[in-house]
Amino acid sequence: MPERLGKQTVALGKDVSILSFSTVAGRKEGEGPLSSYFDTIMEEATWGEKSWEKAESKMQKTVVQNAVDSAGLTLGDINYIFAGDLLNQCIGSSFGLRELGIPFFGLYGACSTMAEGLSLASMLIDGGFAQKTAAVTSSHFCTAERQYRNPLEYGGQRPPTAQWTVTGAGALVLSEGGKGPYVTHITTGKIVDMGVKDANNMGGAMAPAAVSTLEAHFNDTGRSPDFYDLIVTGDLGFVGREIAAELLGNDGYDMSKNYNDCGCMIFERKKQDAHAGGSGCGCSASVLCGYIMKEMMKGTFCNVLFVATGALMSPTTLLQGDSIPSIAHAVAISANSPKS
Amino acid sequence: MPERLGKQTVALGKDVSILSFSTVAGRKEGEGPLSSYFDTIMEEATWGEKSWEKAESKMQKTVVQNAVDSAGLTLGDINYIFAGDLLNQCIGSSFGLRELGIPFFGLYGACSTMAEGLSLASMLIDGGFAQKTAAVTSSHFCTAERQYRNPLEYGGQRPPTAQWTVTGAGALVLSEGGKGPYVTHITTGKIVDMGVKDANNMGGAMAPAAVSTLEAHFNDTGRSPDFYDLIVTGDLGFVGREIAAELLGNDGYDMSKNYNDCGCMIFERKKQDAHAGGSGCGCSASVLCGYIMKEMMKGTFCNVLFVATGALMSPTTLLQGDSIPSIAHAVAISANSPKS
Repeated sequence: MPERLGKQTVALGKDVSILSFSTVAGRKEGEGPLSSYFDTIMEEATWGEKSWEKAESKMQKTVVQNAVDSAGLTLGDINYIFAGDLLNQCIGSSFGLRELGIPFFGLYGACSTMAEGLSLASMLIDGGFAQKTAAVTSSHFCTAERQYRNPLEYGGQRPPTAQWTVTGAGALVLSEGGKGPYVTHITTGKIVDMGVKDANNMGGAMAPAAVSTLEAHFNDTGRSPDFYDLIVTGDLGFVGREIAAELLGNDGYDMSKNYNDCGCMIFERKKQDAHAGGSGCGCSASVLCGYIMKEMMKGTFCNVLFVATGALMSPTTLLQGDSIPSIAHAVAISANSPKS
Repeated sequence: MPERLGKQTVALGKDVSILSFSTVAGRKEGEGPLSSYFDTIMEEATWGEKSWEKAESKMQKTVVQNAVDSAGLTLGDINYIFAGDLLNQCIGSSFGLRELGIPFFGLYGACSTMAEGLSLASMLIDGGFAQKTAAVTSSHFCTAERQYRNPLEYGGQRPPTAQWTVTGAGALVLSEGGKGPYVTHITTGKIVDMGVKDANNMGGAMAPAAVSTLEAHFNDTGRSPDFYDLIVTGDLGFVGREIAAELLGNDGYDMSKNYNDCGCMIFERKKQDAHAGGSGCGCSASVLCGYIMKEMMKGTFCNVLFVATGALMSPTTLLQGDSIPSIAHAVAISANSPKS
């Protein structure tokens, strides 16, 4: 049986393993420091499709199929899939997965989607509803840019606090039992809105949500940051990471040793002109399903706390003068079985 | 422990009760046949707010607060809330619930959202992750119309197959134990896309998804349609309901006695000029949390199968010539404890 810890956390009661994972990344991401961790690097932004949106759907379909294949399973073995993305009506997911025939739960968590999907996919196994589940998300620079900001042809300038939407997707297949890595704890975020209205500073808007969820996780579990080999938020970028680390430091949590952010990891800061770093659902998804999982399999990390962050506003709410509600969900992943 | 039945259904293992429910409806809905079942009827479309979007957020906040109040609980008692809506980035939910401080899972299931949220909220209780959960969704004619179709001022004409987006919201609070009505079975839909491209015939696009999920439910549970006092889809409208009944009839399921659709129930067909009936997340949500729950409490219905249907396309995919992927999720609700 799972155990409720404090107000926001559950400790899973069973062994819930991450059985397989897969990523696809865009060309720019494929030129970055995590290049060697991506399974597939797209040569160009439409990836053979007639639109960027269709390319993003293909990205989701590809990573799910690859993750299922690499687990030695078939699509029919997956009891439920959780999916979402940044596009209006989450069309990356619904069009990407419509042919797969897997019972489908659509999510909207903005850039927190990977942690949201991983949370629910793990809980449905732990609760005895499923033996195998999957979670997937994606983002695409070109689809996001024209939907949230301006036509690409416009060539709008960006302030230094702006982040670059990652072209990437990541999928995980989860299983009851297995040899790990295991999902052990889930801390579900509350919406936090500190009044930030600058859509070119999403890291600043989201940092307090990350802090809220991290502090809830530490309080609920009794763990301190040094329990983890890696605490990784995603995607606060350089601006948000600094704010989060400072706020946590002020509250007595030392984040100086093992804390990083997917938005800071995916691009080379000085060379790749991504300003404050990467963003988008695909940022934390492709870092988790690429770098983090592969390094966990090698033994580099034993305990990882994955904290995906999302900004829940829309262009309409910005035009209506509203601020940016944000959320972060944390998932603790361990090489050690929670039963051991 | 829950029990998996067939490919898409789980039977819950515990008593998971619907503890309370609340609705708000727009003026047109308040003039319809279900008028007396709505808790609150808005006098005008902005409901005292500066925009229709802010009004929709207020609708979600109101029904959640009212449902929590009427259960005799406080917001802090709710372990998780599942919420979504039709607006880009689901801002009805994120802005509506941002002040409530409840661990939040954002959903995107289009008009299937109420069944999706009810499914997951029930499973988290049944799995031992929560004692109290909530699910909420909403739609608003004015926010949906200008986002999906045309500015209201344009006054575009509608073909007879078009549905009218309901202005309404519904919320449920669920609890472990309790006196019922109980959520007993959950059949999770797969995405179905039969190639319909006409966004003015969403009922036609969604009917095959409803049929797919209903047939899965009957096959998985061994129940036939006559097990239920009421089988209610939402929101296929008059066109989609007829298609669904015919397709099910062709496959040997007699839907002639106890089948209705929320989109057909919420407006007076001839007098209210809603063409093919109601649609929108708020349609099935307000019918479930108003009419259906209140009649269950009175004893009119003992066993209800609630099957909310969603069309997962976007204006962008329509412009790109794509068809309309659809989904339906079924939730069986009974006055009788599954343990009895």
